[in-house]
Amino acid sequence: MLASEVRALFAVASRPEIVSLAGGMPAVDALPLEAVAATTSDLITRRGAVALQYGSAQGDPQLRARICDVMAMEGITDAHPDNVVVTVGSQQALDLLTRVFIDPGDVVLTEGPTYVTAINTFAAYQARVVHVPMDADGLNPEALRETLARLAAEGSRVKMLYTVPTFQNPSGVTLTVPRRGEVVEACRRAGVLVVEDNPYGLLSFNGDPIRAMRADAPDDVVYLGSFSKTLAPGMRVGWALAPPPVAARLVLAAESAILSHSMFTQLTVEQYLATQPWPEQLKAFREMYRERRDAMLETLAETMPADSTWTRPDGGFFIWLTLPEGVDAKAMLPRAIAARVAYVPGTGFYADGSGRNAIRISYCYPPPDRVREGVRRLARVLRAELDLRDTFAPRRPNDQ
Amino acid sequence: MLASEVRALFAVASRPEIVSLAGGMPAVDALPLEAVAATTSDLITRRGAVALQYGSAQGDPQLRARICDVMAMEGITDAHPDNVVVTVGSQQALDLLTRVFIDPGDVVLTEGPTYVTAINTFAAYQARVVHVPMDADGLNPEALRETLARLAAEGSRVKMLYTVPTFQNPSGVTLTVPRRGEVVEACRRAGVLVVEDNPYGLLSFNGDPIRAMRADAPDDVVYLGSFSKTLAPGMRVGWALAPPPVAARLVLAAESAILSHSMFTQLTVEQYLATQPWPEQLKAFREMYRERRDAMLETLAETMPADSTWTRPDGGFFIWLTLPEGVDAKAMLPRAIAARVAYVPGTGFYADGSGRNAIRISYCYPPPDRVREGVRRLARVLRAELDLRDTFAPRRPNDQ
Repeated sequence: MLASEVRALFAVASRPEIVSLAGGMPAVDALPLEAVAATTSDLITRRGAVALQYGSAQGDPQLRARICDVMAMEGITDAHPDNVVVTVGSQQALDLLTRVFIDPGDVVLTEGPTYVTAINTFAAYQARVVHVPMDADGLNPEALRETLARLAAEGSRVKMLYTVPTFQNPSGVTLTVPRRGEVVEACRRAGVLVVEDNPYGLLSFNGDPIRAMRADAPDDVVYLGSFSKTLAPGMRVGWALAPPPVAARLVLAAESAILSHSMFTQLTVEQYLATQPWPEQLKAFREMYRERRDAMLETLAETMPADSTWTRPDGGFFIWLTLPEGVDAKAMLPRAIAARVAYVPGTGFYADGSGRNAIRISYCYPPPDRVREGVRRLARVLRAELDLRDTFAPRRPNDQ
Repeated sequence: MLASEVRALFAVASRPEIVSLAGGMPAVDALPLEAVAATTSDLITRRGAVALQYGSAQGDPQLRARICDVMAMEGITDAHPDNVVVTVGSQQALDLLTRVFIDPGDVVLTEGPTYVTAINTFAAYQARVVHVPMDADGLNPEALRETLARLAAEGSRVKMLYTVPTFQNPSGVTLTVPRRGEVVEACRRAGVLVVEDNPYGLLSFNGDPIRAMRADAPDDVVYLGSFSKTLAPGMRVGWALAPPPVAARLVLAAESAILSHSMFTQLTVEQYLATQPWPEQLKAFREMYRERRDAMLETLAETMPADSTWTRPDGGFFIWLTLPEGVDAKAMLPRAIAARVAYVPGTGFYADGSGRNAIRISYCYPPPDRVREGVRRLARVLRAELDLRDTFAPRRPNDQ
């Protein structure tokens, strides 16, 4: 499994002398810990017999109502709590959806690159992942239509498009609004379910959140959300919003998978949202991450060799850095670790071996100074790598 | 799905005027809520940045070490934290095991009756459930050997035996120690994995816990444990102890399913065990449940018609009540609800339609007086049912 590489890397990258640009961990130390502690303590004291008991497989009704309020911030104004299923992070929602919809050999379309653990989940159910190219405006609708036509001609059964349209993991890219309609329309015509995974949507650096794909296509899109990046991943509270028949199947699948989610963490999130100034906390997160993003973009511009390129995210956690031709990002990683900086090689984000000269670098966790130092170290490693390449690479005929 | 019946029932049975003997909910109101509140508050204040962050797919190492101490109470003295996988209740452990081991059409052996949600999980992976008869001493090893031989002769692929050997759900029956060895041996010879699900083992009413099957068969048994009945189900902290190659596959499956379990609930459990007098809490639970079991057994003896029989559990939550021949427990349920008592009809605990004249009644949740009142109401409903049966049933030839 591709994730094993990431895991081994994280074990090393967690050493304090290393600047890790590898992880996607939110900066939970920016949370008001005393307020969280008071929330949990008050919850147990007042409602312990409920919070410590089993819950329903669909999730707590009050939390589901509050989740609808959260989704309204992204333009989803018609969501009903009956169609929300609370899950163990949005990862479980993706797992259950795959379990319900995918038979071995079915095709799942994804952006290329895409979220690494989604690839693992699809592989666990023996789906075939086909990547659709993207650019600075996100998934390319023309390429999507071509891919759908090609797969239909082959007789392949395409079941879903998995997309992270906003501040994508790993690329940081956002699907433009006009393209959103085109993507949904192409999938609707082909009978392909759109799965919109949106953990970063509320972490926009430029004002209001972007309108969710689901907002304009309630019958065609299953929306996956999460409090992991906007509150705390340690709660493992995510959700799916799905058309009623799909929601019903997800509830049955959830019951078979885990019986019920933790009432304790569900009610903690619910009570935190009800009693604490969460919108201000979101604002603080956005400002903090924007400052880190700026630190990374500035240092990349100052230090990277001319023939490397990178994305410019308007929110979220990640930048996708394409290294000069001929650099093998995975082979370079041990030398980067020796130089005390870590990243994730690009190949992990593809199911087909692409991404050899690309890496994901994240600015979400280290403070700005550490982000800058990490990028400087990375640039030094890369320049040494280019020297090696130029010294030892087979010369092309027109060299000399 | 069979669980849908149980769900619909619980919705009605939760009304306060009804004595529910249907649920399997532990009496969490007996927990020292202030101590739990203090534990969570202290945890967030001292270790919030860890408790609110992502964890590893295998679970927190300190908690896994403590789980090994818990299992030592049941004779498992060789468990290593590396072979423990923390799961979202033991339900998730069962789901992941089924995912890893079962291909469509494979046979899973279970006791008849067995835990209802296990049947759902096996069905979700298209396993074929074959029940092995049990009696007051638990699963019958002779019947197990015969079943294994018959299935082998048929060419069926038997992958696992799923058993709740101690204070079984739903029967309350415990597999005797001599039979434990016989069951494991029969499965070993047939190359069948034993899955020992043991959520109730520490809730013994007669002194020391019973030695786990896993204690004497580390290579043949995967052990599933849970804090749901010994602390609080709202934490959703369960686990699997498995041989190393199986544990490794469970970790990968867990990562694909949920990325990681809640660090917040894991560390809450860990810290509660470390700082609170949990063994005394266990003792209090045992005494409370024993008192309720006694109330149920006494009232059954006082009120039930002569030709009904029931089990006499030495621990756990449940009694299995076999009603007189010809009574349809599912058809009787609406009349029981009208008489303000609820139970679970026996058919839900079988994959093959057995159990029509049996019911599961639980004494875990209502206080003793309510247990007694519930059984009295049940007896009245049953007597009315028997009157109906005797009035309208077709007479046998030798009647008159």
